[in-house]
Amino acid sequence: MHFASDNTGPVHPKVMEALFRANDGHAPGYGADPITLAVQEQVRAIFEAPQAAVYLVGTGTAANVLTLASMTRPWDTIFCADISHLHEDECNAPEFYTGAKLTLIATENARITPQGLRKAVLKEGTRGVHGPQRGPVSITQATEKGTVYALAEIAALTAEARSHGLKTHMDGARFSNGLAHLGCSAADMTWRAGIDALSFGGTKNGLMGVEAVVIFDSSLAWEFELRRKRGGHLTSKGRYLAAQMQAYLTDDLWLDMARSANEATARLAAGLGRLPWVELLYPPQANIIFARIPRSVHEQAQAAGAVYYTWDEPGDADETAVARFVCDWSMTAGTVDAFLAVLSAPPKG
Amino acid sequence: MHFASDNTGPVHPKVMEALFRANDGHAPGYGADPITLAVQEQVRAIFEAPQAAVYLVGTGTAANVLTLASMTRPWDTIFCADISHLHEDECNAPEFYTGAKLTLIATENARITPQGLRKAVLKEGTRGVHGPQRGPVSITQATEKGTVYALAEIAALTAEARSHGLKTHMDGARFSNGLAHLGCSAADMTWRAGIDALSFGGTKNGLMGVEAVVIFDSSLAWEFELRRKRGGHLTSKGRYLAAQMQAYLTDDLWLDMARSANEATARLAAGLGRLPWVELLYPPQANIIFARIPRSVHEQAQAAGAVYYTWDEPGDADETAVARFVCDWSMTAGTVDAFLAVLSAPPKG
Amino acid sequence: MHFASDNTGPVHPKVMEALFRANDGHAPGYGADPITLAVQEQVRAIFEAPQAAVYLVGTGTAANVLTLASMTRPWDTIFCADISHLHEDECNAPEFYTGAKLTLIATENARITPQGLRKAVLKEGTRGVHGPQRGPVSITQATEKGTVYALAEIAALTAEARSHGLKTHMDGARFSNGLAHLGCSAADMTWRAGIDALSFGGTKNGLMGVEAVVIFDSSLAWEFELRRKRGGHLTSKGRYLAAQMQAYLTDDLWLDMARSANEATARLAAGLGRLPWVELLYPPQANIIFARIPRSVHEQAQAAGAVYYTWDEPGDADETAVARFVCDWSMTAGTVDAFLAVLSAPPKG
Amino acid sequence: MHFASDNTGPVHPKVMEALFRANDGHAPGYGADPITLAVQEQVRAIFEAPQAAVYLVGTGTAANVLTLASMTRPWDTIFCADISHLHEDECNAPEFYTGAKLTLIATENARITPQGLRKAVLKEGTRGVHGPQRGPVSITQATEKGTVYALAEIAALTAEARSHGLKTHMDGARFSNGLAHLGCSAADMTWRAGIDALSFGGTKNGLMGVEAVVIFDSSLAWEFELRRKRGGHLTSKGRYLAAQMQAYLTDDLWLDMARSANEATARLAAGLGRLPWVELLYPPQANIIFARIPRSVHEQAQAAGAVYYTWDEPGDADETAVARFVCDWSMTAGTVDAFLAVLSAPPKG
Repeated sequence: MHFASDNTGPVHPKVMEALFRANDGHAPGYGADPITLAVQEQVRAIFEAPQAAVYLVGTGTAANVLTLASMTRPWDTIFCADISHLHEDECNAPEFYTGAKLTLIATENARITPQGLRKAVLKEGTRGVHGPQRGPVSITQATEKGTVYALAEIAALTAEARSHGLKTHMDGARFSNGLAHLGCSAADMTWRAGIDALSFGGTKNGLMGVEAVVIFDSSLAWEFELRRKRGGHLTSKGRYLAAQMQAYLTDDLWLDMARSANEATARLAAGLGRLPWVELLYPPQANIIFARIPRSVHEQAQAAGAVYYTWDEPGDADETAVARFVCDWSMTAGTVDAFLAVLSAPPKG
Repeated sequence: MHFASDNTGPVHPKVMEALFRANDGHAPGYGADPITLAVQEQVRAIFEAPQAAVYLVGTGTAANVLTLASMTRPWDTIFCADISHLHEDECNAPEFYTGAKLTLIATENARITPQGLRKAVLKEGTRGVHGPQRGPVSITQATEKGTVYALAEIAALTAEARSHGLKTHMDGARFSNGLAHLGCSAADMTWRAGIDALSFGGTKNGLMGVEAVVIFDSSLAWEFELRRKRGGHLTSKGRYLAAQMQAYLTDDLWLDMARSANEATARLAAGLGRLPWVELLYPPQANIIFARIPRSVHEQAQAAGAVYYTWDEPGDADETAVARFVCDWSMTAGTVDAFLAVLSAPPKG
Repeated sequence: MHFASDNTGPVHPKVMEALFRANDGHAPGYGADPITLAVQEQVRAIFEAPQAAVYLVGTGTAANVLTLASMTRPWDTIFCADISHLHEDECNAPEFYTGAKLTLIATENARITPQGLRKAVLKEGTRGVHGPQRGPVSITQATEKGTVYALAEIAALTAEARSHGLKTHMDGARFSNGLAHLGCSAADMTWRAGIDALSFGGTKNGLMGVEAVVIFDSSLAWEFELRRKRGGHLTSKGRYLAAQMQAYLTDDLWLDMARSANEATARLAAGLGRLPWVELLYPPQANIIFARIPRSVHEQAQAAGAVYYTWDEPGDADETAVARFVCDWSMTAGTVDAFLAVLSAPPKG
Repeated sequence: MHFASDNTGPVHPKVMEALFRANDGHAPGYGADPITLAVQEQVRAIFEAPQAAVYLVGTGTAANVLTLASMTRPWDTIFCADISHLHEDECNAPEFYTGAKLTLIATENARITPQGLRKAVLKEGTRGVHGPQRGPVSITQATEKGTVYALAEIAALTAEARSHGLKTHMDGARFSNGLAHLGCSAADMTWRAGIDALSFGGTKNGLMGVEAVVIFDSSLAWEFELRRKRGGHLTSKGRYLAAQMQAYLTDDLWLDMARSANEATARLAAGLGRLPWVELLYPPQANIIFARIPRSVHEQAQAAGAVYYTWDEPGDADETAVARFVCDWSMTAGTVDAFLAVLSAPPKG
């Protein structure tokens, strides 16, 4: 009963097989191998973006900060959600790579709104050289709370950004889960909705540690390549990243895995919704659920071997604690049901 | 006939098998999984260094610059060879991660000498706040030219460094090849010879993309962990790095692979030494050879399908060009002999 | 009628005379001259801090960011007010010099509270290497809105900081105005109240461009000196900074000037308080007033030659606009009265 | 007998008077005052460069690194002399502000040559993303050793730079001394000779601490302004910098002071040339002399109260030590002669 994170699950067997096939003889290094070249074309085809620059890196933080650094000047501020991974979970990597600061925007169901963005943008860039200048916007799809921006919401945000001359980056560590939820095309959810560059995650959805960066404005490509090397993120044996991504993108495996994770999550959410002692904090649209649950129930669950994170607010004397449940692609209906059975024992006291 | 680089070769089958075995169910992320914990112990045992801090990262540049940054302050200068990977092949990553500068030292057979180091150190740190302060020393074992520091040479360098209060880092991207050449223990070649921190490479010797960092002074460990995350180099699914390193270190696989690469190189060097039109530029002690060879011979070799790099000095009207030949663990005596046969056709003209 | 800023006023004649006296023959550079040495002792005496490290720099931003950088590691977050100069008016200089980020705290009358600080601190440093670590606290005395922390408020904030192991920096660009308001000693308002390091401003209070940095924990001194040089802030002809500061500190000139500015401000505030169409936004305790005033009154004032800033909220259709009035040391009662006369004409429409 | 540095001398009385005149009433801050605007025009007129962007900063290091940072990307290398102030005396400020590294070029009489530059440039930028990219060239006029580039030498260097697409910066901390030596126009020695941006020093030639930056390609201006603020180098009371520069540039005061310094230096050099125990190390063309002198003579000179620096090579058992003598604008023939008299006593032993 592993619901701690989608980075604790296994790699998909088809990905492992692709790694084996790739391990044949010699191949040029640093992304000049045939598999990397093929994957770049594959990504361009899936995104219907023949001019896009496509790169592979090993971590989601690297994908985010290298991409943003290529869009940001050191005196800028980057507009993002106050709960974004960029702000909360990258140990100042954005500041390190960009030199810039982050302007935090409050969210509704974990999504920033055009109004919130507008207000934040109008406050900055009005004090000449004294304050930071307006830099890019970064949004997360699916969000860190398991919600998903609708296409019209993305388009409204990028339109707002564009009206100020700003570009928009999408942190798509869980891009696949968002796309599976919306059921649209990858192009629809990105450049057709105004996205300029994307961190396209694989690691949280069944790869070992591979993220693609898709830069729709390829004029940023060379700068990205230099920043990648300068950050120590240029992998010498690129074929082993590429082989994973190739398997991932073949025959919709990535979407199948994301759908599987989303369906397990929906099943879990539905079950939780039937328990009167559980409060769901966000509409569960992707593969993450946040729920407020009595502490005694947590104790039962953990005693039964369930693995997940709980958050206590500092000094919180409450009888409940918030839990995060994440389903990865390998989560089965059986495990969800077993977990629901554990959580269904009424709270004590 | 692939002699371009040791990062173009395949991963050892035992490493692939270990990856398969590791891909079983769920495991904690970010290096808290059992395989990572076991590998850390394994490294400590091999290095006879029970207190050492051990980390895994995905690239050699990351291993070098994260380790050095933990030993360097932004106003320091790092003492290293003028041909070091740090200086020549990391696109300012050392400057980015440390904020410091590099003081370049000329080499003899690609090795810096205590005298050269002493002269460089004495020149710095003498101008109060005006000039940079003295930072750590970094040496490369085996060197970028395929030579190997003797144990006494390492000890003399670290003693010189220590006499100025400076620490010494070893860039061990080809540590295994150096160790296989010397036939000593890993402890002898590192902390017993005065090394404070090591980038212990795996990628160039049969892994997909895994380097261990071994910090003998574990007081630097927490800073290293923060720098690793801030640089975007903390891998979430750590077990897949660890499984490779575990297989690598089991039953001396790493040393077997390094010996295999060194032996192929020695065989190639011996054959080259018999060709009057070939000049070996450095004593071949590890798995790299630099040789000056007539251009017509290069043309024959490339026509025959041999893959390797040549360097022309700018404006060089010479009839020869310098070639670099690198043997990875998978290089066979048969391929070496076939390559030698191609190079043995006398130069034209 | 110049109320735009306290950096638009003239330098005090006694300071000019001191500059003349200092301009005599040769003197050692880089702060080794006798005047600098004497000023350092003078500052230590005034602050009753014989061990303090004292430095002079040319701008308030430099004083702030060099001091904070000496107290902050690149993976930290600095706790400060959301209206602080650090955040709003230094164009990412804090991020540049420290590598860290800022955690913004909402204020009450422009002052952060121990509760607000506590909440902000508890939220950070709880996610291991994933989030930023807890760095120093920075407070501004007097604040950017013209209010002043009471001694007990400073002590409560530094106690809260200290309970988490954090140091506290004071941005004292208007230190003198705050001190004149409180009527206490410089030691009381700093180290006796728990302050670890101070930017002690002179520029806004009658100097050309001189700020002292007072570091009560002199173990940070050498790092500060290196950071100052590395930032390009080590002045070669230090005597000309020092001579100004020496005149400033002699015979309480600095306090006289601050009192003069505060009194003019109080006179202006009292007059404004009698105008029913003026709303004072903060209790005026130092030398700055923020007031909401009808636009027609602003038009009259500006037509009459008054110089000051107004702020319109974006999209603000309101009939009023917020003005900032700042009095420098040279402001006279006559000018204040003349300005009040202009503002006293009833609004039109 | 002060020959230690040109930053130990006094400010010219006309500059002090200008400061007094500027200290009249209120003036807008941050360089928007009338004197700053007038000085910017004055500089453009003197340089015959109506489009140039002109800024004032407080230190020579700031002028150099802010200007270079506006011309450099973080993955570049800057080509400069191995004895340049940039490399030797700025405590990693260039690395801090640019993120780049320096490629050091050996000099002839303290000047880099087109051949030396060409060789250095051709070595870099040839390894794709692996090595640094080619950044700007920086030359120093007059040099740190008191020599001066001829116009044709500057033109040849900038032509070489331009042939690789590189810009050229001039560190003109002693620009006036170089110009006084050549007797040409400021335009001739800069943009007409291919210089793209200039640090135009005042501090070493009779100002308190003012350097102008002249950027002939004004498209870099806005970036410079942001970098200046972000570095903490935007002076709020700009008029006091500008008033100094205005007096400096009026009626050729700057050139008169430089000529005075150069003449005193020439007088000193001529006298030294007559002493058989003194070896001049460089042709003295500006206001600095390096001379090898017996230690016993140094002892006599220092006993007589002469102030200057000597350099001992580490471990140097020689009977001589190298001295640097610098004359500032206020150096008189009488002092030079008195100093020569001291040095003219034959060495002992």
